[in-house]
This record gives sequence, structure tokens and C-alpha cells, in this order.
Amino acid sequence: MRKICIVVNSRANYGRIKSVLSSVQEHPDLSLQLVVGASALLYRFGSTVEVMQADGFVPDATCHMVIEGDTPATMAKSTGLGIIELASLFEGLKPDIVLTVADRYETMATAIAASYMNICLAHTQGGELTGSIDESVRHAITKMAHLHFPSNDKAAGILQQMGEPEDSIFVTGCPSIDLAAEFRRGEAKNLFETYGGTGAQLDWNAPFLVVLQHPVTTEYGQGKAQIEATIEAVRRIRMQTVWLWPNVDAGSDDISKSLRMFQSHNPDFPVHFYRNFRPDDYVRLIDRAACLVGNSSSGIREGAFLGAPVVNIGSRQSGRERGGNVIDVSHSADEIAAAIRQQVAHGKHACDHIYGDGKAGGRIADILASCRIGVHKEFVRA
Amino acid sequence: MRKICIVVNSRANYGRIKSVLSSVQEHPDLSLQLVVGASALLYRFGSTVEVMQADGFVPDATCHMVIEGDTPATMAKSTGLGIIELASLFEGLKPDIVLTVADRYETMATAIAASYMNICLAHTQGGELTGSIDESVRHAITKMAHLHFPSNDKAAGILQQMGEPEDSIFVTGCPSIDLAAEFRRGEAKNLFETYGGTGAQLDWNAPFLVVLQHPVTTEYGQGKAQIEATIEAVRRIRMQTVWLWPNVDAGSDDISKSLRMFQSHNPDFPVHFYRNFRPDDYVRLIDRAACLVGNSSSGIREGAFLGAPVVNIGSRQSGRERGGNVIDVSHSADEIAAAIRQQVAHGKHACDHIYGDGKAGGRIADILASCRIGVHKEFVRA
Amino acid sequence: MRKICIVVNSRANYGRIKSVLSSVQEHPDLSLQLVVGASALLYRFGSTVEVMQADGFVPDATCHMVIEGDTPATMAKSTGLGIIELASLFEGLKPDIVLTVADRYETMATAIAASYMNICLAHTQGGELTGSIDESVRHAITKMAHLHFPSNDKAAGILQQMGEPEDSIFVTGCPSIDLAAEFRRGEAKNLFETYGGTGAQLDWNAPFLVVLQHPVTTEYGQGKAQIEATIEAVRRIRMQTVWLWPNVDAGSDDISKSLRMFQSHNPDFPVHFYRNFRPDDYVRLIDRAACLVGNSSSGIREGAFLGAPVVNIGSRQSGRERGGNVIDVSHSADEIAAAIRQQVAHGKHACDHIYGDGKAGGRIADILASCRIGVHKEFVRA
Amino acid sequence: MRKICIVVNSRANYGRIKSVLSSVQEHPDLSLQLVVGASALLYRFGSTVEVMQADGFVPDATCHMVIEGDTPATMAKSTGLGIIELASLFEGLKPDIVLTVADRYETMATAIAASYMNICLAHTQGGELTGSIDESVRHAITKMAHLHFPSNDKAAGILQQMGEPEDSIFVTGCPSIDLAAEFRRGEAKNLFETYGGTGAQLDWNAPFLVVLQHPVTTEYGQGKAQIEATIEAVRRIRMQTVWLWPNVDAGSDDISKSLRMFQSHNPDFPVHFYRNFRPDDYVRLIDRAACLVGNSSSGIREGAFLGAPVVNIGSRQSGRERGGNVIDVSHSADEIAAAIRQQVAHGKHACDHIYGDGKAGGRIADILASCRIGVHKEFVRA
Repeated sequence: MRKICIVVNSRANYGRIKSVLSSVQEHPDLSLQLVVGASALLYRFGSTVEVMQADGFVPDATCHMVIEGDTPATMAKSTGLGIIELASLFEGLKPDIVLTVADRYETMATAIAASYMNICLAHTQGGELTGSIDESVRHAITKMAHLHFPSNDKAAGILQQMGEPEDSIFVTGCPSIDLAAEFRRGEAKNLFETYGGTGAQLDWNAPFLVVLQHPVTTEYGQGKAQIEATIEAVRRIRMQTVWLWPNVDAGSDDISKSLRMFQSHNPDFPVHFYRNFRPDDYVRLIDRAACLVGNSSSGIREGAFLGAPVVNIGSRQSGRERGGNVIDVSHSADEIAAAIRQQVAHGKHACDHIYGDGKAGGRIADILASCRIGVHKEFVRA
Repeated sequence: MRKICIVVNSRANYGRIKSVLSSVQEHPDLSLQLVVGASALLYRFGSTVEVMQADGFVPDATCHMVIEGDTPATMAKSTGLGIIELASLFEGLKPDIVLTVADRYETMATAIAASYMNICLAHTQGGELTGSIDESVRHAITKMAHLHFPSNDKAAGILQQMGEPEDSIFVTGCPSIDLAAEFRRGEAKNLFETYGGTGAQLDWNAPFLVVLQHPVTTEYGQGKAQIEATIEAVRRIRMQTVWLWPNVDAGSDDISKSLRMFQSHNPDFPVHFYRNFRPDDYVRLIDRAACLVGNSSSGIREGAFLGAPVVNIGSRQSGRERGGNVIDVSHSADEIAAAIRQQVAHGKHACDHIYGDGKAGGRIADILASCRIGVHKEFVRA
Repeated sequence: MRKICIVVNSRANYGRIKSVLSSVQEHPDLSLQLVVGASALLYRFGSTVEVMQADGFVPDATCHMVIEGDTPATMAKSTGLGIIELASLFEGLKPDIVLTVADRYETMATAIAASYMNICLAHTQGGELTGSIDESVRHAITKMAHLHFPSNDKAAGILQQMGEPEDSIFVTGCPSIDLAAEFRRGEAKNLFETYGGTGAQLDWNAPFLVVLQHPVTTEYGQGKAQIEATIEAVRRIRMQTVWLWPNVDAGSDDISKSLRMFQSHNPDFPVHFYRNFRPDDYVRLIDRAACLVGNSSSGIREGAFLGAPVVNIGSRQSGRERGGNVIDVSHSADEIAAAIRQQVAHGKHACDHIYGDGKAGGRIADILASCRIGVHKEFVRA
Repeated sequence: MRKICIVVNSRANYGRIKSVLSSVQEHPDLSLQLVVGASALLYRFGSTVEVMQADGFVPDATCHMVIEGDTPATMAKSTGLGIIELASLFEGLKPDIVLTVADRYETMATAIAASYMNICLAHTQGGELTGSIDESVRHAITKMAHLHFPSNDKAAGILQQMGEPEDSIFVTGCPSIDLAAEFRRGEAKNLFETYGGTGAQLDWNAPFLVVLQHPVTTEYGQGKAQIEATIEAVRRIRMQTVWLWPNVDAGSDDISKSLRMFQSHNPDFPVHFYRNFRPDDYVRLIDRAACLVGNSSSGIREGAFLGAPVVNIGSRQSGRERGGNVIDVSHSADEIAAAIRQQVAHGKHACDHIYGDGKAGGRIADILASCRIGVHKEFVRA
């Protein structure tokens, strides 16, 4: 049985790989080695590991690697610490294949540890263009990976352009879409009763915004101004608002500070803050949102499939393939507010399969079970 | 004045960047920040830092990062430690541009620390194809770098294929060639009298082989068999032999053990072991060698310019552009011995500018002084 | 001029060494090298570094070393990372003496880095008995330190018993008392208007409790039950309450979670949460408190001098010398509530010089300027 | 069954704990968890791990932690890395008791990782006085340890003086003596035929010196002068000499360089260099030596039991309890040579049980199986 080690290192990672976890776990020829690390272990980011355990995914190992500080230097150092820790874990686990998700610094740590240890490396979300350090990291990981599971043909084309051999590239769709595809509308579940968080009491049956804005690490230092434009726009709209705390990237503290200040100065504003949702509940949430606001890739990925109205702010997703459900705006309160109004007025968009048809998990597991395992790479010249 | 931070992390790094160090140091608009780290600090690898100091390059900082062990896992962990240490140094030095050399794990550490810290990253030797993890790492660094100084047009073409913008690519030639170009034949200097090392007394005026064989980390575990084929071939040739200890990569100990065993069982064999030569003396050495044997890139790079007869063994340089001075063989004592005999009989080859014309250092300094400094990257689709 | 490197690694460290920072800074024969690290850099713990800068203490270097997770393992690992980072800093700073404060893991990191690097190590708060890992660490640091600045004769006696030479021990009093001694009662400053925090609006002119309860790392796992006893007692008292978030030790998250839960379930309870106070404001706060509740050493140290009514809970301060101002109770809501009532009824106690007379800072600076600097230690047998 | 985790981190550690490894392995109520780390894994220091495996001790985990460089700063950093790595291992192994040996930096790493993780810590060789950083570290570990296995009553007395409770102290003798006690004289085994090494051919049946001189880290920088006095003395004696390479401490490279220089300039001198001996062979070696020269504690410990003539040089063992078999000298070639001549002329001394009677291993295992396991410590005032 092939040992497939999947490293889940953040809240976002989990939703983007959950269907693969299930498919690998259930596959007769595969054995899942689950490593949970980085911010996926942290209370401050919603203790994703506990959500996973409740879902039946018990980690074989955990791996603390976040050096607290939320600066570019601590982000670099966390990558370094992650490599040290993951190398120890891989020595013990001896996986046949390591699967790493997307493009964050912990993903980079996984990729370096595996590739220097001559372990076959598989990668999801390769070949996507987005701007920011995330894109550089995503491509760098591609150049170290031996198996690619891009979301769509366009991404696969980028991988080939970069010299990756055709037979190492498998267009499977993105596993994050699998959750959106499984989701059935019309259920009664009221998330506002299920989750804790802090802030005003919200009404599940009235319209609400969902806001999720992460720091842009290559624009470190501008985060305060950026979040305040969004806050101002939301303040003007004055609709019920679900706000998710940002991820662990450099600049996160600046955002958190502004949000706490907003909450403290506007005690009566109908906003509620959450650390995390279960991935399927997150789908539920954005499916029900009047508009998803911010710079999370989920608006562009899962949002496309769900037809969710999305206002995407700033450069963090620039260049990423998107459907008709997205309005792009700059960090201007006026623009943001106008776009939110437009999306709320428009309502749902059509379903778009641009990031997959909802069957990625099974496809990836089948390929992992049958592919040639090797660490030799050859550059294919154009 | 722009602060250019150059990180020299190995014996080989130094020769490959020395002319740039000089050119940056002398440039009126540039200020050199020299960081020396990893095996360049270690006695076991010839204390390159002392050689550099004697040459007038005083480090602004040093950076120990080698976790001893010579295994794939320690190589990964050393990369991690290097990132942690370099991030601290970069915080203090605040360089405008970080320049990293080639493709080793310390190079990767430099690239990750700089790019996560939003520092403009320049890179030499990008776009070369060679097989092995080195090639993957080289390309991954390319995808994080903002300025590229490839050795030749073919390499530049590979960079462009991978989506790097044309205006970030500067074909300068490889700085290692600058040393070969400066070197004047006919000098009397006898290196065997200058350097210590251990082993038999050699005669500078009689023909000799130079052997330098590094571990191939992606073939970890086969190193003993590989070095023993080379030893057997050298034993059969029975010419005077200068043998350099291998670099710090995983598998290095296996090679060292076999060499010590050979020396101890053949006390009368005319072989002398060295840890390091000054870069210009190394040029002198291979220029005078009857044949250079092993898998160092120097045979292919500097060797091309010098017309040195080279026997290149195994996969470590596979795919790398080469001139007519190289005979490629597998890890077979018969093949190696036959190729050495053929090269010794042939003597010098013609000079080939395939890796540069000897003026890379000045060109790179001028570009560093005048280029746009930024950390934004855009993928150029084919 | 002697270079005195003082490492401030937590919110609590700062108040405990502030008067020494001033005295060293002003001393004609001393030059202060200030390193700020660990939780003193973190927003989550009140960004002590910013408070320090506002007070005129600009760090020569900062040192992120907290591996987020709040478990015993991350606490150990943070110590390890701290050693790595501090060793780099000490290499650059080349101090004559390193001064480390008290007994936390970052203190241990400082002590190990300095002593392995043959740097003379000075230590405050040695020789105090308290139970818990803190005591073991405090004594271990004593055995590595070359200069001791204990708070009182009893502590000095413990140092001598452990074999420390008499001429290395200087009873100076604890610098934390200096702040209490400088403080003048009767000022009008209303801290509730000055500081942010979250929670109910409090009235400076009405009586209030101050609560500060840290995790006890050697009782990891019992933190939830322990904090809930305290919460229940406070809930019953129903007086205005200033609650400070706990420090970074293992178990901190469990406490934070319970506090957030309490706040969310009791939105009308008159409690306000703070991350940090400036050290002199903290003195103001506990001087004005009707009762200080929890397990902070400040109740026992500064509290003694101020005569503050203190309820000390659990084992964290067990064995520590204390004055008449402290009532010790176990983790029982009944006991805690009864003791609070008793202290509130009693009001202020007499001033007690048990931890110093308020002149420690100047004394320590003078000794640092005139003492013999060496790293040789000799055990003195009883 | 109690899980006893023993961490072996150097060549010397192994001989000092081997009999405990056997006794724990064979004990019906104990389960051995063996961790091998640091220089015990390194080829440069004789690959102790391979010797152990050949002896039937298969590691449950290995732990690379040596940051190469042999400076005070890398020694500190290796301690830090060791803590990080060992904390990960302890998380997986979940031992009931961790046993750490003696006083090196890796020992410190073990002690800190275990004690911050609330694991009961046992320690051998506590309470010995020797000068140098080793003594400080040994005492610091004592203050963190919960169980003490000192070599003799005098050491036990020092532990009690330092406040350790009487019921945590077990005078068992030093396990290193067990090997000396098991050894039977008169065997024919010729070690010079069994071991490799480099240098002249030696004659097992003719008299020989054994030299082992480690760097003194608190005298870093004086190592070259110190070793050269010893070399000069040995040169004058001109007896057959077995020389062991020094350990990994800061300054090790300086010693190695001088030794290589000596060998290269005196190719005909009858000296042979070794990296390591199996612990029982090491006993054989020093039992047969005409004189043991240097600053290893083995001359004082095992040497006392064997009655081996020993010349102890410099401060590294100053203060350590010794028998009549030792002549102490300073770093003077004259003094050293004179003392060697005196010892060679004297021959064997009487057996002395000062460091144990040869039954420590079994005693320690029995105590580990029956003692109370806890992490609470209480200081006992004199």
C-alpha cells in the first residue's frame, strides 16, 4: 500500500484538500498519513485540527512551526522552522508520496523538506496566476514537484510552459470545489446558532455580508490603510456582517487591530467575528451570503461554482482566472461600497465549472494509487 | 548608494562570484554587504572564509547553518536553519538587493529568506539544465528571483520559457569564467609547494590528474559504488593525482570514507588530497592538469574556456551545455579509465566562450547599479 | 565603557528591570545594549516593545522566538529557538556582561546562549523559592550565572547554600520595587480613560478588583478548571473588575478561551480586559485596586511594598517569601470569594520592604560598572 | 511497563551509560527507548551509533543537532537545535522518565526539553566538581532533574548542599566503571589489528601511550598553544602513541589542525590516530597503556578503577575527585614529559573504587523501576 502523506497547514488548506483526504482514506491501495501543522493547530486561527478530528481525520503527527510576530522576517523564519520539523516527521513516516496544497510558506516548507529528502512530491493548484509572493512560491513549488494536479486546462498550460513534462500533469479540478458540489441547498441549518465567535447577534434569515480580507505580504506596511477602506465601506452599507479573522501572514496583526478598534468604537454595529468554520459550513455560509467581500481565493474558486456574488479587493488575486461572479475593485471605500451594492442587487450568478466539476478528490486518489513514483525530473523545452 | 548583499555559502560559490565581489566593491554607486556562511566557514571544506579575507573580502556577517550529518534530512534541515539565520542577518543589513549564486541548498535558503522579506533577489546561473535536485532548486529560485544573470543565450531562453519577463534577464556570462580569462599561462608558481593537504609528494612539472567527485544527492545510497569506480580507474592509470575532498552534500561521508580507505591501503600511490584552493589557483591547477576527472561543473564551465581535457562521470551534469573538451562516461571503471587515457593523449582543446567571455563581473555590477529595484513579478505567457 | 546587554523578553520582565535600564543608560561608565524579544514583541501580549520605545528605550536588536501553540512542547522549542537567535545577536553585540531577569524560558535561553559563549552572566531574582518549573529554571540559571542580584538576604542565603561564592552575590533589592517606591499617591490619572482593551466601561473612582492569573506549566491540563474557579468567585463578588490576559506560558490558550466564554455569556458583567499596562501605570493600578487576585508575583513583590490587599491562588507562588498583605487560597471558588471579601473589607496593609527599598536599579548599575568580569566559577562547599 | 528514554549524544556518553542500557533493556518492568543524537551520529567522531547497533542497541530515534563550526556560538546554537529536535521526539515517544548523562551541551538540551515538557528527569554524574562550563552545566541540570544517580558520597553531598531532597539522590556509582569491572585482563585481543584509523603501524606487544585531549571551551582561543605543549612532550618521549581525535566542543578544529600538521611534518613518528573505540575496547586500551595523557575524565574515572597511570593536563578536570593514579600538570611540555616519564616508570597503580564498584547499571535500572515518578521539586534548606 502506498503511503500518501498529506500536510494540512492552515484553515484554508483543509477545505482545499478535504475531499482528497477522504478519497485517500477510503482507497484500497492507499494509506493516509496525515500531518497537521502551522496555523491549523492554533486557537487564534480556529483550531482547524479539532475540526478535522471531529470529521474523523486524526493526525499521525502535528508540527508547530509558526514563529509568532506576523512580520515578513517571522514568516521567513517559520518556513525555516517548518522545514526542520517536517524533515524529522518525514524521516519517521517514510511516505511514498508527499502531497502539498497551494502556495503558502508552510507549503514551501513541505516542498523543500520532501524534495531534499528524495520523496516524490505532489502539488495541487499549480499553474495559477495571482500576483504577490504566493504566485512566486506556487511556481517555485511546481519546479520541485513531481506530480501536478492543476484545477483547469489553463493552469496545466502554464505548467507545461514552465517545462513540466506532460505526463506529470493531471487536470483534476480543484478539490475545494468538491465541497461546493456536495452541498445541497435548501437545508435549514442555522450557522449563527452553531458557532461562537464574538459580536452582535445576527439573524440567519435576513441578508448578510461575509468579509474575509487577508494581508498582502508583498504590500506589507499598507495593511492598515487597506483594511480601513473595507471597514469604511462595510460601515456605510450597514447590513448584517459576518467577519472572519485574517490568516497568519505578515501584516495580520495590523488587520486585527483595526477590526478590534472598529468593534470597540461601534458597539452597536451588526457585525459578528468568527475564527473558523467547518469547510462544508463555510460553503453554506458563502452560498447564503448576499455578497462575499475581501481578497480570499474562495470567492473566486468556490464562489464560481456556487455563483456567489463576490467583491474582490486589491491585488491579492490579480491574474487569477475568474468567472462572471466577481467584481474587482481597488482599496477605495467608494468603489468597494458601490460594488457591494451592485452585487447585493444582482443576487446569485450562474454556476461556473472553471475550477472543477466537483470530482477532484477521487481522481487525485486514483492517480496517486497508479502513477509512477520517482524523483527524477526532466525539463521539457518548448 | 545601493546596498548589494552577496551571500557566499560554499567553496565553489566563491570562485563563481569573486569577480562580482570585486566589481561591486569598486563600483562608485554600490556598497557591498558580504555574508559568508555554510560550508564556506568550515575547516573541513577548506575554510573558504579565510581565503576570502586574505583576498580582501571581509565578511559583514557570518552564518553557520550546516547541520552535520551529510544525509538528505540534514541537508533539508540545514536549509531550514539557513533561512532562520539569514532572515536575522537581512533584518540587520537591510540590503536593497540580495544576490544568490547557483543552485545549492544554501542558495535556496537565501532565496526564500530574501523573497519572503520583500527584498529584491538577483540570481546567477539560472536557466541551466543539469538533472538532479540542483536543477529543480535552480529553477525554483528562478521563480522567486527578480533579476537573472544567466551564462548564455540558451539559459536565457529557458528563463523566458518559464515565464520570466525579458527585461529581468541579462545575459552576462558566468563570473566563474572571469577568473579563467584573467589567468595568464606560463607562470612559474608551483601550487604543490604552496598548499598543505595530505598524501604523497607530487611533482608540479610532471603530468597529473585532478579528481573532484561530489555526491549526487538524488542517488543517495549509491555514492560508495560510484566513487569506487572512479578510484579503481585512477588506480589503473597510476599517474600523479590531485584529489579534492567532496562538498558538503548528502553522501559526502561515504565518499570521504572510501578515499581514506584507498589512501590507507595504498600508502605508496602518488595521490595528494586537498581541501581547497584559492579560486585563481584552482584555475591554474585545472589549466595544468593532464585531465580533470569527476562531476564538478568546473570542468564544463571553466574547463570550456581553458580547453581543459575533462572526463565527466555520471548524471550530475547531465543536460548541461558543454563544449568539445568533455567526454561523458558512466560510473564504470573501464569507461572512466579509457576516457582518461584518451584525454591525456589528446591534450588541450580549443578555448570555448560557451559560458562567457570573461567580463561578467563588471556587467553584473553595472546592472545592479542601474536596474529598477522591485519585488513585483509578472508571469509572461508564451 | 562596559557594554551591558539586557534582554527583556516579556511584559513582566520590563517592570522588573526598568529602573536598571535607566540606571545603566545614565551611568557614565556603562553602555546599554538593549535586546527585546519573545512575547515582549507581540501584539497579543500588549506590544511591550512599543511601550518601551515610548519610554525612551530603543532596542539595539529584537528577537522573535515564540513558537505559537502554548503547549509544553512549544515552550521547550521556543527556548531552543531563543538560544539560536540570541547567540547570533550576542555575536554581533559582543557585550561584556549579559543581564537576564528572573526565571522564564526566555531567561533560560539568554543564560545558555551567554554562558556557552563565555560571556559574563548577571541575574536578578535568584535564590527565591516558589515551586513550579520556574523555580527549577531560576536555580539552574543561578548555577550558570557569574553575578547575582538577589532581592533580599534570605534569597542570598539560598544562593550561598547552592555553592555560589559570597563575592558574586549582591543583595540589591528587586528593581520592580523601585517603580513602586517612585510612585506618588494622590495623582488624578484615570487609567480607564487612557487604555483601550475590550469590555464594559469601568469607573476609576469606584472600587475595582484586578485579576491576573497565569497558567501553571507543571500543572498543564488543569488550567481550565483552575481559571473557572477564579471566574466563578469573581462572578459572585460582582465588583468592577480589571482582567489582564495571561502570559505566553503553556496553557495560556485554555485560560483565554474560558475568559472569552465568560465575557460572551455575561455581556453585562462589569469586566474590562487589558493586554498590558506601562509598568508605572501597573503600579498605579494595583495601588488603587480593592484587591489583586490571581497568581502573579507582582502581588507578592510590589504588593508588599504598596501594602496592596492580595488573594494569591494555587501553587505558582508557593514558597515565595511574602508579607502580611497576602491571603493564600487553593483553586476553590468558595475560598477565593471569601478571601476577596476579607481583603476588600480590610483595605490597605502596611508597607513592607521585604523585596527591596526602591534603590535596586542604581545599586545594580554601580556594581556592573565596578565588578570583576570573568567566566570562571568555583563551587563553595558548605 | 515504564518507558525509560535514554539519550546518548556522544562517543563518551555511550561508555558512561552502556551498562544502564543493558540493565534497562533486560529489566522485566522497564521498556528502553533509545535516542541517539549529536556527535554520536557523526562519522567525524567515530559513528558511535554504528558501534551501538553492533552491540544490539537499536535506536528508536536519531536526532541530528550539531551545527558544524566548533565555535562557542555554534555550541550554543546546537543546544538550541537539540532542544527543538528532542522536544519533537519526546512528544512522539511519551517516556515516563528521561535519563540524561553527565554535563555536555546535548545533555543540557535533553534536560531542558524534558523538564519543560513535564517529564521526570534522571541524571548521572551529578554533584561532581571539575571547573569549566561543564561544571556549571552539570549543576544546572541537577537543579532541573528529579532523580540523581551520583557516583559517590561526596558528589551526593554536593547535591544535598544544593537543596536536592535526600530521597531523590541514589549513590549508585558511575556506570562507566561497570565496563572496567567486567573487563578481564590477560586476553589476547590485539586492538591495533581490529581498528582502522590513520598513521604508523603500532605493535600491541610493545609499550604505548594513549593521548586524548579535548578543547576547554571556557579557554577558547588557547587551544592551539595547549595542544602544542602536549604534542611537544609526546614528541620528546618518542614512545609508540595512540592518539584519539578530540570531541565536538568549541575549539576542536584547532586541535585537529595541529595534530594533522604534526603528522604531516613527522611522517615517521610512531603515532596512529583513531576516531573511536567500542567502550569495552577503550577499557582494554587504557588498561594496557603505559600512560594515559590528556584531559579526559576517563583517566580519572575508569583510570582509578584500573589503576592506570594517568597524566592529567590543565584545568578541564580541576576539582574532580581523583585517586592516586593521576599526576596533574599544567600546559607545559616540560612538565608533561616529566610526568609521563614518571608514570611510565611507575607502572600500574592500585585499584580504587572512588567512582563505583562496577554495579551501577543494575542499581539504576532497579531504582528507575520502583521510584516515585513526579515532576514536583522542593528545595531543602540547609
